[in-house]
Amino acid sequence: MKEKLLCGVDLGGTKLSVGLVRPDGALVDKVVVYDHTEKNEEGICLQIRDMVHDLFEKQHIGEDHIRGVGIGFAGHLRFAEGVVITTSNFPRFKMKNFPIRQMVQSHFGVPVVVDNDANAQSYAEFLFGAGSAYDTMIFLTVSTGIGAGLVLNRRIFRGMTGTAGEFGHTIVNPHSDIRCGCGNYGCLMSHASGLALPQIVRKRLKQGAETTLPITDSTPINGQFIKQGLDAGDPLCRSVVLEYADYIGIGLYNLFQIFNPPVIVLGGGLMNWGSLYFERIKKKFYTLAGDMLYDPIEIALAQTGGDTGLIGAAALLLEEP
Amino acid sequence: MKEKLLCGVDLGGTKLSVGLVRPDGALVDKVVVYDHTEKNEEGICLQIRDMVHDLFEKQHIGEDHIRGVGIGFAGHLRFAEGVVITTSNFPRFKMKNFPIRQMVQSHFGVPVVVDNDANAQSYAEFLFGAGSAYDTMIFLTVSTGIGAGLVLNRRIFRGMTGTAGEFGHTIVNPHSDIRCGCGNYGCLMSHASGLALPQIVRKRLKQGAETTLPITDSTPINGQFIKQGLDAGDPLCRSVVLEYADYIGIGLYNLFQIFNPPVIVLGGGLMNWGSLYFERIKKKFYTLAGDMLYDPIEIALAQTGGDTGLIGAAALLLEEP
Repeated sequence: MKEKLLCGVDLGGTKLSVGLVRPDGALVDKVVVYDHTEKNEEGICLQIRDMVHDLFEKQHIGEDHIRGVGIGFAGHLRFAEGVVITTSNFPRFKMKNFPIRQMVQSHFGVPVVVDNDANAQSYAEFLFGAGSAYDTMIFLTVSTGIGAGLVLNRRIFRGMTGTAGEFGHTIVNPHSDIRCGCGNYGCLMSHASGLALPQIVRKRLKQGAETTLPITDSTPINGQFIKQGLDAGDPLCRSVVLEYADYIGIGLYNLFQIFNPPVIVLGGGLMNWGSLYFERIKKKFYTLAGDMLYDPIEIALAQTGGDTGLIGAAALLLEEP
Repeated sequence: MKEKLLCGVDLGGTKLSVGLVRPDGALVDKVVVYDHTEKNEEGICLQIRDMVHDLFEKQHIGEDHIRGVGIGFAGHLRFAEGVVITTSNFPRFKMKNFPIRQMVQSHFGVPVVVDNDANAQSYAEFLFGAGSAYDTMIFLTVSTGIGAGLVLNRRIFRGMTGTAGEFGHTIVNPHSDIRCGCGNYGCLMSHASGLALPQIVRKRLKQGAETTLPITDSTPINGQFIKQGLDAGDPLCRSVVLEYADYIGIGLYNLFQIFNPPVIVLGGGLMNWGSLYFERIKKKFYTLAGDMLYDPIEIALAQTGGDTGLIGAAALLLEEP
């Protein structure tokens, strides 16, 4: 083995994936579990250790064959300390002020780094995906939540605590009556995230929006549901997709005015809504930017696919110091 | 003379100032003119040369006593090329695709740098003012227009073209009926800048807002006018100041979520509205940030005073490569 592998850990509220990744971004092998949320914080760290060791056995390698362990985590972190500040992603418990890096590090002799999942995904796109031709790239993930990753001059910009890029919480409609989980009204996340879909769809129904779908109070309204309705030609789903696109277009425009980046990469589950959605996002962006766009900007879809969280977590180990 | 001086040029639509600045930010001497807008582009460059030479004579020094010439300019620039893309700040003509750096450089044997005035001011604050204790600082100028300067890890972040930090153009109210000069509705500049004051005050009057002031169609409504009304206890001016403050508070909150900076510095003419305005800005910010603020952030007023544009332009020569 010429080059050491990278070990990536994608720790989410639903799924825990551990994988071995080559320095060129190719996934070698992975293991996935869904029962980690049954455990407590330390239990999860032990589970990560065991999953890494399982991969070692499968691949007939040892710790000396990996460069380190990178963890992508869905929640707020103190990056320098590797401490989870808080997350509401685990249904059974709230991880609060948990020194996750130190805990995982205690099980390994190689370096462990931890960052939030949006930063990890953005770094995967920057190194191996749609941002790889640039030195600066803004990544926007539109999924259950909305978050940005800021790769500025080849480095992830993290800010004071490590929470830079929380673009989903920026206020884009101060007179909105739609409240986000953060407690504020009118942030981007309250208007254009997966999390907001039930609230927005039910509001439109109350306002008399037409739909061909049998939506009851217990219908689970998520991105997949909207996608199916969109494909079936449902007018309500179509109008929600266009409204969401306009807000994301505003988000892209705001990112453009702030960062003047050469590329913005869009990832996350809602990007699966397809071309109607993506084209409308771009249309809104270009309408707003008008003649203020002096150089071409690339608006691209993420390329690193379903394992982007894992590959990005591993890629964190490649960040230049 | 132990240390070489810096020559700063503040080229605005009303005033052209040229000054000599010590590397510690102290202004040694300056000359100011208001007739530059009578000239064309090349005439202005010649005038800058002559003003610098006047200062040399007054101070009994020559070009070998200065490190270079830094120019702060109110308009959009291609930073790398030192070219004015466009500006609407000069009443008599539109500067378009003008290679201002090259033109000024042709008159000097020392380096010439050109950047926009918000970046220049922010760098003055970063080196000599309210941001000097930090490595990262976001500067927001609230004046006729609104713009940000992004000092990230001791460097000004300028983006692809050089127009990063155009925070005044970010959309904060997509359903707004107030149009900005940029053509869009509901950007921060259309709700909280000096430029928007006449439109907003007259709209409030139409809606029946009470005022003690004799406002006619020809009354010039600017920041100074509102300040006087505020001091005189006029309810309309007070309500406009509070409304403006709430929008700037939203702006600060958005900057916080994006950059997670340790400090945000507020400058520009409207900050002279005083403590009612500043305290309300902070109140709005802290209300929105709530428990998402994990580390203290300093919200500070600019300290470099009336010559900040000049000092900042000079300070551009101190930027680390």
